Amino acid sequence: MNPQPTSHDALEVIPLGGMGEIGKNMFAYRYGDEILVVDGGLAFPEAHQLGIDLIIPKIDYLQENAALIKGWILTHGHEDHIGSLPYIMPRLPRVPMYSAALTLGLLREKLSEFGIKEADTDLREVEIDAQVKIGQHFVVDFFRITHSIPDNMGYVLTTPVGKVVHTGDFKIDRTPTDGKLSQLDRIEKAGDEGVLLLISDSTNAERPGWSISEAEVAENMEELIKSARGRVFITTFASQTHRVQNIIKSSEKLGRRVVMEGRSMLKYAQVSQQLGYMEFKDPLVTSDEVGSMQDSQVLYICTGSQGQPMSVLSRLAFGNHAKIALKRGDTVILSSSPIPGNEEAVNTVINRLYEIGVDVLYPPNQKVHASGHGSREEQLHILNLARPKYFLPWHGEPRHQINHARLAQTATRPPQRTLVAKNGDIVRLTPDDFKVVGTVPAGAVYVDGLGVGDIGDDIIMDRMSMSQEGVLIITAVLHPTPHIELVSRGFIRSNRELENQIRKVALEAVEQGTRDKKRLEDIRDDMYGAVRRFVRKVTGRNPVLIPLLVD
Amino acid sequence: MNPQPTSHDALEVIPLGGMGEIGKNMFAYRYGDEILVVDGGLAFPEAHQLGIDLIIPKIDYLQENAALIKGWILTHGHEDHIGSLPYIMPRLPRVPMYSAALTLGLLREKLSEFGIKEADTDLREVEIDAQVKIGQHFVVDFFRITHSIPDNMGYVLTTPVGKVVHTGDFKIDRTPTDGKLSQLDRIEKAGDEGVLLLISDSTNAERPGWSISEAEVAENMEELIKSARGRVFITTFASQTHRVQNIIKSSEKLGRRVVMEGRSMLKYAQVSQQLGYMEFKDPLVTSDEVGSMQDSQVLYICTGSQGQPMSVLSRLAFGNHAKIALKRGDTVILSSSPIPGNEEAVNTVINRLYEIGVDVLYPPNQKVHASGHGSREEQLHILNLARPKYFLPWHGEPRHQINHARLAQTATRPPQRTLVAKNGDIVRLTPDDFKVVGTVPAGAVYVDGLGVGDIGDDIIMDRMSMSQEGVLIITAVLHPTPHIELVSRGFIRSNRELENQIRKVALEAVEQGTRDKKRLEDIRDDMYGAVRRFVRKVTGRNPVLIPLLVD
Ligand SMILES: [Zn+2]
Ligand SMILES: [Zn+2]
Ligand SMILES: [Zn+2]
Ligand SMILES: [Zn+2]
Repeated sequence: MNPQPTSHDALEVIPLGGMGEIGKNMFAYRYGDEILVVDGGLAFPEAHQLGIDLIIPKIDYLQENAALIKGWILTHGHEDHIGSLPYIMPRLPRVPMYSAALTLGLLREKLSEFGIKEADTDLREVEIDAQVKIGQHFVVDFFRITHSIPDNMGYVLTTPVGKVVHTGDFKIDRTPTDGKLSQLDRIEKAGDEGVLLLISDSTNAERPGWSISEAEVAENMEELIKSARGRVFITTFASQTHRVQNIIKSSEKLGRRVVMEGRSMLKYAQVSQQLGYMEFKDPLVTSDEVGSMQDSQVLYICTGSQGQPMSVLSRLAFGNHAKIALKRGDTVILSSSPIPGNEEAVNTVINRLYEIGVDVLYPPNQKVHASGHGSREEQLHILNLARPKYFLPWHGEPRHQINHARLAQTATRPPQRTLVAKNGDIVRLTPDDFKVVGTVPAGAVYVDGLGVGDIGDDIIMDRMSMSQEGVLIITAVLHPTPHIELVSRGFIRSNRELENQIRKVALEAVEQGTRDKKRLEDIRDDMYGAVRRFVRKVTGRNPVLIPLLVD
Repeated sequence: MNPQPTSHDALEVIPLGGMGEIGKNMFAYRYGDEILVVDGGLAFPEAHQLGIDLIIPKIDYLQENAALIKGWILTHGHEDHIGSLPYIMPRLPRVPMYSAALTLGLLREKLSEFGIKEADTDLREVEIDAQVKIGQHFVVDFFRITHSIPDNMGYVLTTPVGKVVHTGDFKIDRTPTDGKLSQLDRIEKAGDEGVLLLISDSTNAERPGWSISEAEVAENMEELIKSARGRVFITTFASQTHRVQNIIKSSEKLGRRVVMEGRSMLKYAQVSQQLGYMEFKDPLVTSDEVGSMQDSQVLYICTGSQGQPMSVLSRLAFGNHAKIALKRGDTVILSSSPIPGNEEAVNTVINRLYEIGVDVLYPPNQKVHASGHGSREEQLHILNLARPKYFLPWHGEPRHQINHARLAQTATRPPQRTLVAKNGDIVRLTPDDFKVVGTVPAGAVYVDGLGVGDIGDDIIMDRMSMSQEGVLIITAVLHPTPHIELVSRGFIRSNRELENQIRKVALEAVEQGTRDKKRLEDIRDDMYGAVRRFVRKVTGRNPVLIPLLVD
């Protein structure tokens, strides 16, 4: 950590999340004594981060410079952009927070779940192409750009050193569901005036071509719903408002009444509908109400696109949903792809659905899902519109950032310099220079149960060891007669002979130590070492050993 | 479990592994008092099977009917077909075991590692298109069929009730590396004579078209090696003898000397070379010897295609290989796809390689890998050659079996009946009938460390709980003055206040129990319950609680 003093001729971009990873997007702009914060997202743990519910960014830098924060902007309502806010906002000053209606609607819902009062926040709804002045030095010109949730925004940031274009998450959907096209002219205009830095979404930098439009997905889905004879069950991301809307439209057209199942599905639909982003001609019905309808008149939209164990689709697949049972003749459509890490869970659900005998439809054999992120041609199009002097590939793992960086070299006017930054880097930008000049603390804060930050990597390591080999607790009771008690969890099947041998080994160590008048700690360590060696030799295993001495 | 008595007019097919899963392939044919066993493979654990090294099939049925086993045939040398044999063979009688040279060569290597003597086995090498009579009732006509390892065999089994065709694992490679085409005429001939049952590989029943030939992979790889400026590192499955051979040929042609790194890579190469399945014009060199050569004259073939933590490629990617360090200008080719479950590990390796700055090439953007299993057109071709009366889709999860079953309905002459069987099903076959008539014990035996079968699902469940929330051990010492000691692993960061509160709650329960003169077990249970409720309320967590009472 070696931040240089901030001068008045440079803009600093300081990513606190989302750089070198997909998730927990958050970064800060700093110019002089003013900080502008962008987003505050969460990440989901990887398989080896055992027992962690979610991960939020480390915000030490912002806490240390809290007085400088002049404003906060949110690009859109996905969890990886607003999911950390209930954890982070209470620890930072109340500053104006700007975003579009749906994003703030989803955030309000979230804050109220956490018991955070509206009065402790300063949420300011803006039009999707509004101009906002923040502090003395930042002017933000938002623009609409298509993604997999409505009200998604990019923006042009005008600063004393020059213009920054940040795409936000994007795809370039030329036939969006709501007919509202991306305002790419804003990027082009900025390009005409001169863009110093482009910060662009790298997610699909390894996918050639142009992404599929949501309209094409809607068409394919409607065909499949039309040809289904029995009930139809569709799962997708709850935040995929446009897709859910399209499914509802198709259902209405094809004479099917819609049942929504799953808390998050209902929550998003409610917020979207209240704010005018989702329309129902026919009101929703409940699974009880459809009891009297014919199978061909019913369609369920439900949670579970990632194979989450408690989701509606998983409960249906495993036959333990309280009210609904799948049967032959039903059609299940997974309008989604597994997020990396969820492949096994989704595969298990798909197999169970096949075993039940329903028709199961999913990508890639069925074109029922489109990514919310643009492919290479779309990324290149943005580069050609913005024509930036400097380029910062963002929202991607190193493989995505680096492929995006290489793609930039094929632009009509390639950037003069591209940096592949990491979380915590201080990226310093002047009209003539662009480099990493230091770092600030950055990284993962684990959230588990009610605790934030009380789980560290050392604890994860212990969990890892126990998950591999279990735990063996050896209690030596010294008085009146020394004896050993054993308890294990997750080790091996109860085995009298082995247990007796372990007891004997432990007791010998204790008795030897007592004879030698060793200190209790040393006796305990001797016992630990003796048992560890013995267990490893006899079983080939290394359980977590916990030696206890009761005097 | 309800096996009906075996009659003399029926053949039973009894899968003990590989049905409804990809892995641990093994099944038995039974006719009257004779049993013929096919393969004996292992499976790798899924992510939730914590700490398990590998999984072998339950063989209770074979042990109970050991006297009836007349012979054993092995289709090929992959782990999912021969990997369990060192665990299984010692527990079953010594019977003739037939296979081709490479398969037996790999098996011998494996048995000797386990200290199993050749004299305790009865390995009989056969030509790849040999005929073998086993017992009184089984005649096996092997045939060559292409796959991702040499010496792969299918066979026509002639029994008193009719002919069975088993493809074994297969693809139909029309330009195989060694020029040896699949002997599909054998299947066609059987089809002309009448096939009662076809057992066919379902792995890629969801992939349209025809699989890529190994020749195409070889060509693409050679192009990439040719255009590499610096050193080239290639990882692939060690058992992919043909691909390794092709890489060696390309290296020799392009003037690069080959270094092989990784124990399994060297082991397979050695067996393959000894048996004449792999040729080197230039002898292998060591990584020390290439020190003096130019980067453009060196090519490494190494282990690690699945991101295994201790493999050569992982050590290179994480910069902790003892002798070799990657650098800019190097090219790394992953000639493989991640097996389901390994996606995260492979992704991490790829990201680290990008960070080092090497050129990283992998599918699907580079066509450097081909599956060893045929796609739908190939599966259909086999169905049309065999024209079976009955069909048993094998070597697949339910999704693959069921798609294969549906595909069969599009054959020129669709089977009269298809069964989607499970491990343990007794599939009974007569000239006029084909059905599941009962089950035998079947399932997974876990191998962990030196232990086989001493880990059960209950232990896995304990490991799962500890991996999620850690463990908290509460020891109540009753004399002289009652007091409580706490130890935890993988729970939360040491927190005096919380620990004191837990101690207080536990002590109150103990003192109350003592006053009420409860039994020790009841006091322990009271303490457990009180602490559990308190911890859940205060932390939102449910660690594995272990209460100990020392009187
Ligand atoms: Zn997004
Ligand atoms: Zn995002
Ligand atoms: Zn195979
Ligand atoms: Zn196989």
